Amino acid sequence: MTTAPAPSDHSTDAARHGYADHKADHLARLHKIEGQVRGVIRMVDDDRYCTDVLTQIAATTRALQEVALGLLDDHVRHCVQDAVQADPAQGESKYAELTTALRRTLRL
Amino acid sequence: MTTAPAPSDHSTDAARHGYADHKADHLARLHKIEGQVRGVIRMVDDDRYCTDVLTQIAATTRALQEVALGLLDDHVRHCVQDAVQADPAQGESKYAELTTALRRTLRL
Amino acid sequence: MTTAPAPSDHSTDAARHGYADHKADHLARLHKIEGQVRGVIRMVDDDRYCTDVLTQIAATTRALQEVALGLLDDHVRHCVQDAVQADPAQGESKYAELTTALRRTLRL
Amino acid sequence: MTTAPAPSDHSTDAARHGYADHKADHLARLHKIEGQVRGVIRMVDDDRYCTDVLTQIAATTRALQEVALGLLDDHVRHCVQDAVQADPAQGESKYAELTTALRRTLRL
Repeated sequence: MTTAPAPSDHSTDAARHGYADHKADHLARLHKIEGQVRGVIRMVDDDRYCTDVLTQIAATTRALQEVALGLLDDHVRHCVQDAVQADPAQGESKYAELTTALRRTLRL
Repeated sequence: MTTAPAPSDHSTDAARHGYADHKADHLARLHKIEGQVRGVIRMVDDDRYCTDVLTQIAATTRALQEVALGLLDDHVRHCVQDAVQADPAQGESKYAELTTALRRTLRL
Repeated sequence: MTTAPAPSDHSTDAARHGYADHKADHLARLHKIEGQVRGVIRMVDDDRYCTDVLTQIAATTRALQEVALGLLDDHVRHCVQDAVQADPAQGESKYAELTTALRRTLRL
Repeated sequence: MTTAPAPSDHSTDAARHGYADHKADHLARLHKIEGQVRGVIRMVDDDRYCTDVLTQIAATTRALQEVALGLLDDHVRHCVQDAVQADPAQGESKYAELTTALRRTLRL
């Protein structure tokens, strides 16, 4: 009997070293964001005024970026840090990965 | 027996003149975004690797901004346009309102 | 003897109907931004600390987005408005143009 | 005979450990951005069409964010890394500083 394979070979490692300490925090924020998106859906369903909907979307976008910032912070403190200390040669690939993540978060 | 009051006195008007034509479109996109947020929650729950989560958050943020762009487009074409044509004096307040909405969407 | 052709056939029109009233304002902001970029160059030249440079870049980016917001505001009030009033058929192309400009400003 | 004091007590350190390797790169990009801002000034001066100016501003904003990304990348690889390795206790203040820089760059 086997368990399902992890989505990628670093995922278990990530759980321990990455955002494990703030997991509950990130989940609480994300559940709130899910509620915000549902609120936007209700507003559109109820034909609420465009600019009121836009204000709510702006707040939701900002909340998502806050979660991204929290994950980036955890990622640098743990994943990147640990990888570099364990094996400086591995550092380069971690840095490149971080820059890609930053680029996406900045939408460049 | 009474129905609940409309959230604001222009809400019914907005329904007709604003994003009415694209309402189904906006709702479909928003339901997809709700699914994306739930996907992010599952990823964090499953301890998926930080940068994979960040990629998903970036896609969700972008999707939300696309909805905002669609609403802004509808808003200029209908709410602002109609208000200005009906009463140029009302135009000023509509323009000011639009600029505020743009400012929030640009996060300035 | 001829003068150089205008960059595009609507440029003169734009001058009168678009941001003409706020031209001095936009130019003053842009000259300040040019100074901010020069300030960033000096900081990098002087080996100033990374995060101090980043703070200055963030302020410059925000100032540029403020100019963009001002131009968008002028554009809707004048170019789009006048085009639609003069010829509703022309409105569609103006709206499409505006949405493209918004999309770029939102970096979508 | 004395030299001028450094702007802050970590600035010399930053020069060596931070973006020193990419300084010429960052400066070249920034000089190009200065030229882009001057181009925008000329466009407004010449009454160029609003959306053409907006396209140019969007390109300039994006170029500035690219410099920010490059500096963040250098900062994590050098300043943060070195500080943490030299003195784990100093790491915390470096991480907090990085998060502040990220927050500003994301305009949160």
